[in-house]
Amino acid sequence: MAKKNPQSFFGTPLNVINVGLRSFAESLDAQGVPVTHVDWRAPLVPKLYFTHKGVDIEAANTEAASRIMRGQPMLVGMGVAREVIPGYHDRLILHAGPPITWERMCGPQRGAVMGALVYEGLAKDEQEAVELAASGEIEFAPCHHYHTVGPMAGIVSPSMPVFIIKNEAFGNQAYATQNEGLGRVLRYGAYGPDVYQRLNWMGDVLYPTLKAAIESIEGGIDLRALISQALHMGDECHNRNRAGTSLFLRAITPAIMRTCPDRERAAQVFEFIERNDHFFLNLSMPAGKAMLEPAEGIEGSTILTVMARNGTDFGIQMAGEPEHWFVAPAGIVKGLYLPGFSEEDANPDIGDSTVTETAGYGGFAMAGAPAIARFVGGTPEDALSATLEMYEICFTEHEHFTIPPLGFRGTPLGIDVRKVAETGILPRLNTGIAHKDPGIGMVGAGVLRAPGKCFAEAFAAVREW
Amino acid sequence: MAKKNPQSFFGTPLNVINVGLRSFAESLDAQGVPVTHVDWRAPLVPKLYFTHKGVDIEAANTEAASRIMRGQPMLVGMGVAREVIPGYHDRLILHAGPPITWERMCGPQRGAVMGALVYEGLAKDEQEAVELAASGEIEFAPCHHYHTVGPMAGIVSPSMPVFIIKNEAFGNQAYATQNEGLGRVLRYGAYGPDVYQRLNWMGDVLYPTLKAAIESIEGGIDLRALISQALHMGDECHNRNRAGTSLFLRAITPAIMRTCPDRERAAQVFEFIERNDHFFLNLSMPAGKAMLEPAEGIEGSTILTVMARNGTDFGIQMAGEPEHWFVAPAGIVKGLYLPGFSEEDANPDIGDSTVTETAGYGGFAMAGAPAIARFVGGTPEDALSATLEMYEICFTEHEHFTIPPLGFRGTPLGIDVRKVAETGILPRLNTGIAHKDPGIGMVGAGVLRAPGKCFAEAFAAVREW
Repeated sequence: MAKKNPQSFFGTPLNVINVGLRSFAESLDAQGVPVTHVDWRAPLVPKLYFTHKGVDIEAANTEAASRIMRGQPMLVGMGVAREVIPGYHDRLILHAGPPITWERMCGPQRGAVMGALVYEGLAKDEQEAVELAASGEIEFAPCHHYHTVGPMAGIVSPSMPVFIIKNEAFGNQAYATQNEGLGRVLRYGAYGPDVYQRLNWMGDVLYPTLKAAIESIEGGIDLRALISQALHMGDECHNRNRAGTSLFLRAITPAIMRTCPDRERAAQVFEFIERNDHFFLNLSMPAGKAMLEPAEGIEGSTILTVMARNGTDFGIQMAGEPEHWFVAPAGIVKGLYLPGFSEEDANPDIGDSTVTETAGYGGFAMAGAPAIARFVGGTPEDALSATLEMYEICFTEHEHFTIPPLGFRGTPLGIDVRKVAETGILPRLNTGIAHKDPGIGMVGAGVLRAPGKCFAEAFAAVREW
Repeated sequence: MAKKNPQSFFGTPLNVINVGLRSFAESLDAQGVPVTHVDWRAPLVPKLYFTHKGVDIEAANTEAASRIMRGQPMLVGMGVAREVIPGYHDRLILHAGPPITWERMCGPQRGAVMGALVYEGLAKDEQEAVELAASGEIEFAPCHHYHTVGPMAGIVSPSMPVFIIKNEAFGNQAYATQNEGLGRVLRYGAYGPDVYQRLNWMGDVLYPTLKAAIESIEGGIDLRALISQALHMGDECHNRNRAGTSLFLRAITPAIMRTCPDRERAAQVFEFIERNDHFFLNLSMPAGKAMLEPAEGIEGSTILTVMARNGTDFGIQMAGEPEHWFVAPAGIVKGLYLPGFSEEDANPDIGDSTVTETAGYGGFAMAGAPAIARFVGGTPEDALSATLEMYEICFTEHEHFTIPPLGFRGTPLGIDVRKVAETGILPRLNTGIAHKDPGIGMVGAGVLRAPGKCFAEAFAAVREW
């Protein structure tokens, strides 16, 4: 996996001047990069936007967007990571975001790795886990390299149960773990007996109960339909998943009742999901991954298929260059903090959950989720303007995901590196905030924009095609 | 129950000229009443709006609105109508709307009475039911006279199971039957073997299962909390109840799992509710009734506590004059029709479901439910303007029910007869549409306004206080 020097993109003529909105330049500024800002919104190289060196970019993007929209992500089963994720092995730990070494990992991702190694029984305590993680005996790889996505730290270890989402239109599969809920949870970097106890219950009780129920439903559960409905019920399916969680419970419960012989166990499983409005996040994310993957490898497409953060770096991939991570330092989240915490405690932006924005919902559908605006420190007007702005940088509008307050207009779909470069508008994200130190957990939630540097690099790469 | 001559209110000077918006006059016009329209929005008798003949109307309305908002409607149990509704007897049939005789009943209400008498075993077929209904041996009374509300025809018969909602803040109780779903159902005036089969299943299977579950939940289920959340999830809790139904299932299901020994029966009960997004309507309605009743009898209050239609007449009651129905002919609904039906098939406006608007949600909260606008033939902009307009005729804004797209502003609460008279703005309603003939069922859904005549009469009565 190529990882460029953060400053190297200044070697290309594109990056000497910023041709878009000031925010693009400010984002570069924020990364300590001197930028000359030019208030000029016309495209730098207009002809590039349709064909370039014989590549028909418009046609390639049309095909990419079409594949994404034709995706039919069905929840068809569950399994243990090492058994069902292709290429998994007993010493593999997956993490959110672009590739990273143990040495460069941020606090919450380290904390989650430490917790996972103890949970796996590979280390007897967190100190031993640190030694093992640093020893080189553990392979770390991005979830995205294994058709998987994980919120926040995004740690997947060999024994963890995962949902299996099959894109029936293309045959590809995606994976994600079960959501742990809020409080002290592994994905926010917490570890300790309470964390392991919950993970053990999720493996011993929640997993077999859900697996039996899901696999009894012929054809599986249509996640695109659930996302589509949830977007009409105040969710954006990233930071708000109350409707999605409700609709998932409606879809799964009769099967739980019929397949789980122990009524008390069934009730406890239902209650665990019912008490965690984020449960559906770990289904909306792999649904997005399953829909995006068929667009990977379409020559000439400038649409993003991956956008993910590991808490140290922010990385993107384009459909036309799927093996190439364009990276930049992860940004600082502006948001609301839980009592006792402030921005000083915050880790930079982290998690694969930006797969939702990449797939045309999440922060891009905020206009339909005004209640989430409060959760991340904004107003309903902010929610509306966030979505309206994202149309400026997306290739098209989604056919299946629509926004009632915008007259059922399709959500902005297909972040187009050309349009980001042209307008200087960077993707807006909303996210949870993890404490920067290992072992603590969630401290807040907020909003930010993707860093400009990786988009500038990606656009420079397009010019080389 | 007093029922005034429809024309008699013209004896008061108030009604010679219309001082409000043209729509008020048009509504009177539509009832064949000659009206001189004056484009002048200042109040006719300004002093009346605060105190009148020693009655402090502002203070009375403040108390009424406070009582409504302090209401805590809890779903605490279920029972059979004749056993739990105070004053019920074996020959009593309750119906939606103001009092009416069998002779004046509209088609769908007659159809539902016929079906109910066969369901009860009081008649062997629908023809015998017509004879019995006309014989004088059956007593007909408004649901509202028995702390009960019913959607559409609103028929309650002695054996029907009802939800028991207790207002914990005041101790009063309200009742409603279980929602049958869509298709050929009694509440839309349908009868026949399929209708009775469903009602029997609802009595024999659904009822005991839900009753056991509800009664196992300590303190019951907080319906105000569910309504409040549903209003943030695209419901207005009258014509759209998808979120409310989802949240009710989340609240009740663990109890169903624990109390129902038959897993297959539990699954069938869950599926019956899951497949009917209107199930929650029959909880949001009695929750409204339970919240409104404590305001009845507050001397000098011009706030409505009852607004209901029987498909022939539209009736309202004010808090300050609770025994008095002010009535007018029920209006014609403008809406969208199911395939094969048109406005010619439509019965006039029917049902007690306007209890939701009376209690500060339903059509008055449409700004938060843009998806419902399509269901009744409008746009999201219509939904927004509907709510904004209703603030003009309401006494205050709800403390617990808020609208995210309006910056979490409280819903319009407390329809104030003074303000309706002053502005000429009539309450907006959205509703289902029943076929005008007995035995058929639902033909569409749409919107209309309450008739002006009953408000003019109520305002005239206020001037007599």
